[in-house]
Amino acid sequence: MSKRPGVCLVVSGPGLIHALGGMANANMNCWPLIVIGGSSERNQETMGAFQEFPQVEACRLYSKFSARPASIEHIPSVIEKAVRSSIYGRPGACYVDIPADLVILQENVNSIKYKECCMPSPVSMAETPAVCMAASVIRNAKRPLLIIGKGAAYSRAEDSLRKLVEQCNLPFLPTPMGKGVVPDNHPNCVGAARSRALQFADVIVLFGARLNWILHFGLPPRYQADVKFIQIDICAEELGNNVRPSVTLLGDINAVSKQLLEQFDKTPWQYPIDSKWWETLREKMRTNEAASKELASKRSLPMNYYTVFSHVQEQLPRDCFIVSEGANTMDIGRTVLQNYLPRHRLDAGTFGTMGVGLGFAIAAALVAKDRSPGQRVICVEGDSAFGFSGMEVETICRYNLPIIVLVVNNNGIYQGVDADTWGKMSNLQEAATIVPPMCLLPNSHYEQVMTAFGGKGYFVQTPEELQNSLKQALEDTSKPCLINIMIEPQSTRKAQDFHWLTRSNM
Amino acid sequence: MSKRPGVCLVVSGPGLIHALGGMANANMNCWPLIVIGGSSERNQETMGAFQEFPQVEACRLYSKFSARPASIEHIPSVIEKAVRSSIYGRPGACYVDIPADLVILQENVNSIKYKECCMPSPVSMAETPAVCMAASVIRNAKRPLLIIGKGAAYSRAEDSLRKLVEQCNLPFLPTPMGKGVVPDNHPNCVGAARSRALQFADVIVLFGARLNWILHFGLPPRYQADVKFIQIDICAEELGNNVRPSVTLLGDINAVSKQLLEQFDKTPWQYPIDSKWWETLREKMRTNEAASKELASKRSLPMNYYTVFSHVQEQLPRDCFIVSEGANTMDIGRTVLQNYLPRHRLDAGTFGTMGVGLGFAIAAALVAKDRSPGQRVICVEGDSAFGFSGMEVETICRYNLPIIVLVVNNNGIYQGVDADTWGKMSNLQEAATIVPPMCLLPNSHYEQVMTAFGGKGYFVQTPEELQNSLKQALEDTSKPCLINIMIEPQSTRKAQDFHWLTRSNM
Amino acid sequence: MSKRPGVCLVVSGPGLIHALGGMANANMNCWPLIVIGGSSERNQETMGAFQEFPQVEACRLYSKFSARPASIEHIPSVIEKAVRSSIYGRPGACYVDIPADLVILQENVNSIKYKECCMPSPVSMAETPAVCMAASVIRNAKRPLLIIGKGAAYSRAEDSLRKLVEQCNLPFLPTPMGKGVVPDNHPNCVGAARSRALQFADVIVLFGARLNWILHFGLPPRYQADVKFIQIDICAEELGNNVRPSVTLLGDINAVSKQLLEQFDKTPWQYPIDSKWWETLREKMRTNEAASKELASKRSLPMNYYTVFSHVQEQLPRDCFIVSEGANTMDIGRTVLQNYLPRHRLDAGTFGTMGVGLGFAIAAALVAKDRSPGQRVICVEGDSAFGFSGMEVETICRYNLPIIVLVVNNNGIYQGVDADTWGKMSNLQEAATIVPPMCLLPNSHYEQVMTAFGGKGYFVQTPEELQNSLKQALEDTSKPCLINIMIEPQSTRKAQDFHWLTRSNM
Amino acid sequence: MSKRPGVCLVVSGPGLIHALGGMANANMNCWPLIVIGGSSERNQETMGAFQEFPQVEACRLYSKFSARPASIEHIPSVIEKAVRSSIYGRPGACYVDIPADLVILQENVNSIKYKECCMPSPVSMAETPAVCMAASVIRNAKRPLLIIGKGAAYSRAEDSLRKLVEQCNLPFLPTPMGKGVVPDNHPNCVGAARSRALQFADVIVLFGARLNWILHFGLPPRYQADVKFIQIDICAEELGNNVRPSVTLLGDINAVSKQLLEQFDKTPWQYPIDSKWWETLREKMRTNEAASKELASKRSLPMNYYTVFSHVQEQLPRDCFIVSEGANTMDIGRTVLQNYLPRHRLDAGTFGTMGVGLGFAIAAALVAKDRSPGQRVICVEGDSAFGFSGMEVETICRYNLPIIVLVVNNNGIYQGVDADTWGKMSNLQEAATIVPPMCLLPNSHYEQVMTAFGGKGYFVQTPEELQNSLKQALEDTSKPCLINIMIEPQSTRKAQDFHWLTRSNM
Repeated sequence: MSKRPGVCLVVSGPGLIHALGGMANANMNCWPLIVIGGSSERNQETMGAFQEFPQVEACRLYSKFSARPASIEHIPSVIEKAVRSSIYGRPGACYVDIPADLVILQENVNSIKYKECCMPSPVSMAETPAVCMAASVIRNAKRPLLIIGKGAAYSRAEDSLRKLVEQCNLPFLPTPMGKGVVPDNHPNCVGAARSRALQFADVIVLFGARLNWILHFGLPPRYQADVKFIQIDICAEELGNNVRPSVTLLGDINAVSKQLLEQFDKTPWQYPIDSKWWETLREKMRTNEAASKELASKRSLPMNYYTVFSHVQEQLPRDCFIVSEGANTMDIGRTVLQNYLPRHRLDAGTFGTMGVGLGFAIAAALVAKDRSPGQRVICVEGDSAFGFSGMEVETICRYNLPIIVLVVNNNGIYQGVDADTWGKMSNLQEAATIVPPMCLLPNSHYEQVMTAFGGKGYFVQTPEELQNSLKQALEDTSKPCLINIMIEPQSTRKAQDFHWLTRSNM
Repeated sequence: MSKRPGVCLVVSGPGLIHALGGMANANMNCWPLIVIGGSSERNQETMGAFQEFPQVEACRLYSKFSARPASIEHIPSVIEKAVRSSIYGRPGACYVDIPADLVILQENVNSIKYKECCMPSPVSMAETPAVCMAASVIRNAKRPLLIIGKGAAYSRAEDSLRKLVEQCNLPFLPTPMGKGVVPDNHPNCVGAARSRALQFADVIVLFGARLNWILHFGLPPRYQADVKFIQIDICAEELGNNVRPSVTLLGDINAVSKQLLEQFDKTPWQYPIDSKWWETLREKMRTNEAASKELASKRSLPMNYYTVFSHVQEQLPRDCFIVSEGANTMDIGRTVLQNYLPRHRLDAGTFGTMGVGLGFAIAAALVAKDRSPGQRVICVEGDSAFGFSGMEVETICRYNLPIIVLVVNNNGIYQGVDADTWGKMSNLQEAATIVPPMCLLPNSHYEQVMTAFGGKGYFVQTPEELQNSLKQALEDTSKPCLINIMIEPQSTRKAQDFHWLTRSNM
Repeated sequence: MSKRPGVCLVVSGPGLIHALGGMANANMNCWPLIVIGGSSERNQETMGAFQEFPQVEACRLYSKFSARPASIEHIPSVIEKAVRSSIYGRPGACYVDIPADLVILQENVNSIKYKECCMPSPVSMAETPAVCMAASVIRNAKRPLLIIGKGAAYSRAEDSLRKLVEQCNLPFLPTPMGKGVVPDNHPNCVGAARSRALQFADVIVLFGARLNWILHFGLPPRYQADVKFIQIDICAEELGNNVRPSVTLLGDINAVSKQLLEQFDKTPWQYPIDSKWWETLREKMRTNEAASKELASKRSLPMNYYTVFSHVQEQLPRDCFIVSEGANTMDIGRTVLQNYLPRHRLDAGTFGTMGVGLGFAIAAALVAKDRSPGQRVICVEGDSAFGFSGMEVETICRYNLPIIVLVVNNNGIYQGVDADTWGKMSNLQEAATIVPPMCLLPNSHYEQVMTAFGGKGYFVQTPEELQNSLKQALEDTSKPCLINIMIEPQSTRKAQDFHWLTRSNM
Repeated sequence: MSKRPGVCLVVSGPGLIHALGGMANANMNCWPLIVIGGSSERNQETMGAFQEFPQVEACRLYSKFSARPASIEHIPSVIEKAVRSSIYGRPGACYVDIPADLVILQENVNSIKYKECCMPSPVSMAETPAVCMAASVIRNAKRPLLIIGKGAAYSRAEDSLRKLVEQCNLPFLPTPMGKGVVPDNHPNCVGAARSRALQFADVIVLFGARLNWILHFGLPPRYQADVKFIQIDICAEELGNNVRPSVTLLGDINAVSKQLLEQFDKTPWQYPIDSKWWETLREKMRTNEAASKELASKRSLPMNYYTVFSHVQEQLPRDCFIVSEGANTMDIGRTVLQNYLPRHRLDAGTFGTMGVGLGFAIAAALVAKDRSPGQRVICVEGDSAFGFSGMEVETICRYNLPIIVLVVNNNGIYQGVDADTWGKMSNLQEAATIVPPMCLLPNSHYEQVMTAFGGKGYFVQTPEELQNSLKQALEDTSKPCLINIMIEPQSTRKAQDFHWLTRSNM
């Protein structure tokens, strides 16, 4: 999707339509994004111009704002509006169309009236009575739970939320993109008992987290029928979706978190550390962590997901960006790989679009390079996911970006078959008809896609090879690197308590 | 558009497309509206079903939310979401599609899970530092001005704004739909010096008013180039449109007005009554009012707009709803007819759609009938505007609604010709080719459209006839009434200081 | 919808959205239509301009072609393309947007490169083998039937089809807008046995008629399961819709009809006049006509539909245009009122949009006035249908158009109640809640809506009054006229053989 | 875009949006395509379901037909309609949405009513008078030219067109996708004098070729102002686009070609072989071919485009499919690589979308494998173009498809820099800022992307290496292969007579 990555994406012609996936994804995920496209010359419209297409209209469904400046003079203000629209309120994707005749036009640069960039997003707070009521509901909770969403990350609520968690001793769960707002290894993080926490909580406070499929719509059987939701969101229309909340707090997540803190400063309160609820959660976390550890410690080869991720987790620098996409790779990886900093995890998000990983990694690497030399981007890809935009390694090598790509390779989507099984079939001709289409070629050497462009590549089959290659990759900062990690093709996640816990959208 | 008026509009088939004008209008004007449509049977889709059309898609561009429930069980939650979406955040239009097979389906009523209506709109406030800064900018203003928009009316900010106006002695201007939040006859209302106030203010506070064409985009020459805007709005994306505001206050207008009041309570301050600015404004108001009065007092016949409106204004009950549409009729009427109560004026709004007047009047009358018997709706229509949905008088008569329709009849759009001129042309055949299409038939007896359905009708040509007929209409509450008021076909508004003041969208 | 009627409709601002209903209707009905709209100034787009809206995009779903010229120079070629697109291939609606800045712009008229209007529609024929096969299938038919659709009317196939019908002695049925291509009183027209003809035919030839809801999708129980369809259509994508045709003939209806005639010229053949099939059809026609006649001759008052239409039919000039809309009024009227000329009937069409009647009548009258002085337009309206755009009588009177409007008034949609029943309810207040919303006010004097603008009006309650008023209206050509015909509010169509024959979309 | 290639593309969730580029491309190029997508469960719509998106609506702008079956029973008829719509009339893309709940639903297989596939496309012919007029215009031409477009290929007009060309001795030009309908090496093919032929012809006959940007809109200066166009097209709305044609022939290209042939059979006629026009064209072809040959014979290294393509052309089997995409690679390759069979060239087409090449190659290979074992697909890719979907080599290797990919590698889009220049910049960090973004990494080893998945790879820098590797690749049919051909980074096309001949959309 992106040969020039970043928040601002410049595309041309039908490149725009390539970019629609990214726009839709950004928009559904509430990520700010500006796409600048180049349509054909206006005076050739209706004539069958090169790549003639109604681009502004084509972007409508995929964006918050889509427009074409009427003239060169008009460009600065339309760009300003697009940037502003992408970050004010709930963030989203915006499109600005620059037709070819405006691109070509020569203009006296002095005649252009530039426009300053917009001011930072305005901040709003919840009304005081609602804040008081929310505090009161929390105080009276028997089994409270905080859920920290990406809205909390956007609003930079890390300090206020950490204080709230610690001051009130409340258990919390991050959503995928809310990971790291409060560090994953914080003692109050109950990520390892996620299903249990959701299912039995009697009061749940949502900090910028939507009750969509990721949170199972807030409905039974994943939740108590009478659970009280306190919804905190920047977007009024989000409040009341799928459930009837007990309290709604409309405002900036950080501002509202501070308002809640004020309440607990005025009348201090702490959720008892020795409560039954904490005990239940801790017990469940211990069990789950033990199960994961057991899986991780399995010495049989090929490796399973847990073995791979536990070794990766051991070596990851605390300040790295983690980018991830895939099915099991992303889902299981998220439970093992820890985030310690806010806004340092990027994954396929709510909309679940594959093919975004390398673009994200490139964007994160450019930020990292600029900001803190030495910071690394770890891009954890399923093999099928890597297949969508693997060619972006050329970009990575061209700009020599500090990215380590890990391809967790099970030869397929969800599940593949091993080379032996594949080989036993008399010939590939046949395999092609017998093997289901989500089985990919076994023993694909994705690391060579990296070495083809001058990066370093590793093909690893054992824990030791994984440890060594990752160590080398982290030490040698001179080149991008890809580690192709072969795992058991039938590997899957650990058993869940209930069948329905494995249905992602139940 | 509406045979069954109100916030909830039920349409079927291509009736939906008739309703799109209304939806677009409501949506652009930020009016809450739910439209329920009936598409064809789903299992006949793609076959050429009766009135087959992609209705949900057709409404996308015209609404905040457009959806079709998947099943009968799904209807309550989709309706709840539509209602909620129409009133939470910035209000707008929403569409729910009920395909014919769901309309027909028999279902055990007990199996339906009803859903409670959503809670009132959540209220947000501005952050305190921004409020302080806004107060400080106001205190330092040399020529301050408040503009009260329809956002103030929606948020029911009448008490807080009146207090703010009076406590700080600030001049204010209402927008068309902001009229009555603080009464038009309040001494601080500078409506009669609107252009002057806009042009020379150095600090302008916008209470839920958009800087769109109605406010001339906030740009010179209608404003000082360095005017400081303080924008108060419920919609983050509105902040910064067209101008770079000095302060932005994101939140509910009433809540933010109270926050400002708190500032002025803590450190009281009043804008000096004897300031040069107040003097300038008062002087300009006197001049303008004198000019209007002179026009109003003209005894020549046919009457002009000012004569008509001044007589109407004299008799209007203080608590009536005023509905209006038309070109000059709406524009001039707005300057003369006063509103004393918030949310009691409905006109074509920002989007300027004609044909909405009678529907609004019907909706207002149903509210009035329900709430305060005796309350009247005055519907002030241009003759061309009346031509769009004049047939709605049947609905008015059918439900015997307390509506008085005034058709201000100049035989055309903007301007018509008199019957004499029309007659002098040898025959109508010819007239049809000579007379421009915006000239309508002279001497149209619109009052007979009302009597045709049993209402009362008056044809008036003189001030006395107007006074008498309006008096009768107000006294006799037994029937709806239409007064067809003949005015000078070339009548227009009074001269403006500058030519560009008459260009509506300059 | 139209203050200036015709194929070319000029609208501005949100007037466009008013016009969308008409565009959608025209497009779904395959009627050629050009709408020219005026959007706001381009350099104010994104700023909140007066009536700012993405008009070209808004028309996409409703049109074949929707575009905005890039400059004044570009206007002629875009208009040419719109006109051409509206009539070439399957006709449809097209939209051209002229933004305000182009409307205002002064341009040297000599610099504009005008463009000639496009040539007449290109004509295509079916391939010869398919024509031979079609002729052979017809020759072997036991119970053949021709269906003549509006495609036949468009292609001016009247001569060739009449010849085909007569030469081969085939029974035929017209669709609503195909009426008059071969006159309704032709002995081979089996309109009076429509259901029977459809249900038992073994070979059906469709001349530009779609197998949509109007023809019950071509499926059982309305047709034999093994009926052989020969589809003749100008639109390839139409062929094969809902049924698997035996033969498809792609081409201009007139050209293909001539190709078929050639086959029957080469090897003459005639369907036997004494066949069982002709006997069945004749028998059924006799029965149905007798039933209609009986209803028509009922002397009880108020009149029923059949009485009204039989009296109208008696007096109608052979060359008049018949325009009609409504529910029962349109459906029953179509069976009684005869058309003798092609393209002289306009009704709500496939899409069933109400509110189009008066606009159609105005357009037809302008054509008539121009072409054959003395030709009349008879506009047969249900009372509810008239309520949609009844105000267009102002336009009719303004241009003094040769239109006679008949309002067939049953006080409601489908059914109303009589004034007595209405009156018996203690007061109208109550009526409003008890009477269902499709019951309209009884005794509405729609004729006064006409007299209000100087036309003539009649209120008729008996056959004699109807006869006299219609006679007068036809004789006096000096003024437009409206006859308000009161009928039995519960009046309905005559009983059908099977219940499912009354379900319009079965 | 495609992990499972072919006319039928199965995608799910936002995969659809990935596929939109392909749909738009197919639709703008008039290629038949069915996309089957899987949206989220219907009863979770509006709740924030996994990958919830209005998919049918999202495809509207990109397709001829887009629909969702209402139930499982409805699926066969919607699929039938989609297939039919994609190939009847002008071909295009169609979308069918199968929501997740229909995918999961268990249904008694016997209850499903399967639907036969539609019949072959109906064929129409032009009307005889127009055919006669066309023949007459051709007979009277002084400088005639036939242009053979992809419409001719679709309609399988190869025999009739070859006969017409030879019988009348007319010069012809193919469009990019019309190549091979009459073989490129036919003596009457004037491709090598394309600009000259277009510029001076006085009569041009278009066989299924649109007058869009590829044919420079049919306007001066690329054409004579008074050139007479005879347009033959299957799509009525195409006739008259941009020019006012002398004759329009609406119908199937093959059928109309036969109609023309009949005319020339009846009254034989041949364009004189010794005409001035043939002389001019031959002269120009000789000059152009000599210039190409000179470029091709250059021995300097790195190679230029002409050297590469002349060596490829020498070895290509006559029956191979040629797939191509890129900027110069596609444009220059098209002039050198010859097609001898119709429908054996696939390139980016009118819409110019990059990233389609490998998908096309896979589709063509599946057809080839099935139809004629041994047939090869040659996929000629620019390096930048390959970067879009290069990862599809995994699919190629997985199914062991008979594809040879040639990457013509100039290190960039239009132009790159060589490794030396790149290296001289002090470090890559800097390069990233200095080198423009369309310069890609030099010395990228794209062949390793092939070997990574078990295919064969060659890195070639000299004509000999190219010859040898291509020879090996053609001989060894056991594996797919990629030849990475390094060329001069600044290499470009040969000089044109006029500057404006290099502007692609002039």
